[in-house]
Amino acid sequence: MEIKNYLNEQRQLVETAFDQFVPQAYGDFKDHIDAMRYSLLAGGKRIRPILCLASARAIAGISIEDQDILPTACALECIHTYSLVHDDLPAMDNDDLRRGKATNHVLYGEAGAILAGDGLLTWAFDLLSNPAHGNLDADKKLRITHCISRAAGSFGMVGGQALDIATENTRFPFKTLQTIHRSKTGALITASVIAGGIAAGASHAQLNSLENYGNQIGLAFQIVDDLLNATSTTEQLGKAAGSDAELGKATYPSYFGIEETRKRAKKAVEEAKNCLADFDNKARPLRLLADYIYTRSH
Amino acid sequence: MEIKNYLNEQRQLVETAFDQFVPQAYGDFKDHIDAMRYSLLAGGKRIRPILCLASARAIAGISIEDQDILPTACALECIHTYSLVHDDLPAMDNDDLRRGKATNHVLYGEAGAILAGDGLLTWAFDLLSNPAHGNLDADKKLRITHCISRAAGSFGMVGGQALDIATENTRFPFKTLQTIHRSKTGALITASVIAGGIAAGASHAQLNSLENYGNQIGLAFQIVDDLLNATSTTEQLGKAAGSDAELGKATYPSYFGIEETRKRAKKAVEEAKNCLADFDNKARPLRLLADYIYTRSH
Repeated sequence: MEIKNYLNEQRQLVETAFDQFVPQAYGDFKDHIDAMRYSLLAGGKRIRPILCLASARAIAGISIEDQDILPTACALECIHTYSLVHDDLPAMDNDDLRRGKATNHVLYGEAGAILAGDGLLTWAFDLLSNPAHGNLDADKKLRITHCISRAAGSFGMVGGQALDIATENTRFPFKTLQTIHRSKTGALITASVIAGGIAAGASHAQLNSLENYGNQIGLAFQIVDDLLNATSTTEQLGKAAGSDAELGKATYPSYFGIEETRKRAKKAVEEAKNCLADFDNKARPLRLLADYIYTRSH
Repeated sequence: MEIKNYLNEQRQLVETAFDQFVPQAYGDFKDHIDAMRYSLLAGGKRIRPILCLASARAIAGISIEDQDILPTACALECIHTYSLVHDDLPAMDNDDLRRGKATNHVLYGEAGAILAGDGLLTWAFDLLSNPAHGNLDADKKLRITHCISRAAGSFGMVGGQALDIATENTRFPFKTLQTIHRSKTGALITASVIAGGIAAGASHAQLNSLENYGNQIGLAFQIVDDLLNATSTTEQLGKAAGSDAELGKATYPSYFGIEETRKRAKKAVEEAKNCLADFDNKARPLRLLADYIYTRSH
């Protein structure tokens, strides 16, 4: 139960911060900003911002102010949301349903959804580089911006989505599936953890441990996603279940079967926690988050 | 003739810098990066990077190194190119031809073009925030990143495109046309000029003058674009001419007629040059660029 309370509390912290750090819809750009806000505020687990906050607290405890890390946390969610909006487009995965609600292009049209995604992505970098937000020095903000842009871009999330689409309905080696997972999902999760560490002034060794932790939970996250897609109903997921098998997509279960896949997810979670061996009790939420990623049901 | 030589030389400087600052296509992400490079290397006037370089030189002369401003110059062109790739999509302007070549989605498909645009936009912020590039301090890099993200985003270029699409085939007041121009085109042009100034350590007063200069040439640029669309052939432009009238788009000529529109462009150029009254001869290229924007033929 404890993790549930923690997740709820942190999710509320992030969603309240949207009021401060995400534009309100008004004036000439009202419809466009409405479209951005629609997808950003449509719910979701807020895992990336929560990981960022937990990582900062694992290093600095309560000595780092919320205001210093919330802009980064919100930026991560803007980037994640934009990626969903673009992935759902008719030209990509063509999904009508996301988190139990109509996808962005169903409500705002294709052009509106493309621009809402572009706007969310660009706004993330506005937030990350805004000298007026919080007290982090320019050097930390710049390192955070660079870490996140690398993870979100062509060698990370965007490249992974491109590779995912290019390999649809083809047979490819397991190594390629790992590359897709690492780039499409893993990179931004790892960057969320590293960004929190940079904000909190983590040492080189600590950043290294956080990066390894991020890589392992990123892997676990994607394996569990594959598992859920194969074993849940659409109602449970809030998005189309069984779609991977239908599309003939290579997934962990398609390579290893359900049981072995479950074992691999569990192993990644244990390895993630091992990466935090040198961290004290301030890292407890990071450890709980690793377990949660294995046990989550949607 | 002098401006032609200057533009050629600067364009070559920028295009050579792409080799250093834009990823090569290789490995798993080859096709995706090919798609990005296709549009980035498809030619173009490179006006935004050239303005950025000219602005830095107007302040610091030869005392600022090329390596300190070229990453910013390349990032501006990445952002401009991504906006063209997304604007050309079937769901937006549905253009098959750009700079006399097939548009991105014609060659790489819609999904490929959306992701190429996303990749170029994200790469721009990778470049701007990369601590390894050049010798600008983190504070300057951060201010440049923020200035450009604000101009490229929902209150700038992206918002302007959204408004442009939303108002298609509608009648709207001249004030709305000004908002579209200022946000869709003007904001990134102004940011290009300001970014160069920040890089070169411009004073507050100098940045203010550069901003006013940028606003006036941004205005002139858009008015001339409207004029060229109304008065040139598709062959001269390398993209569809006469498309504004065909789409019933509100433009300067549709409000004021050709002659009065020409006068307004000329006036904006003169005002731009007036903004540089306090600058010495190092600002000569900025003055020539203002004239060029009025006299350009495509």
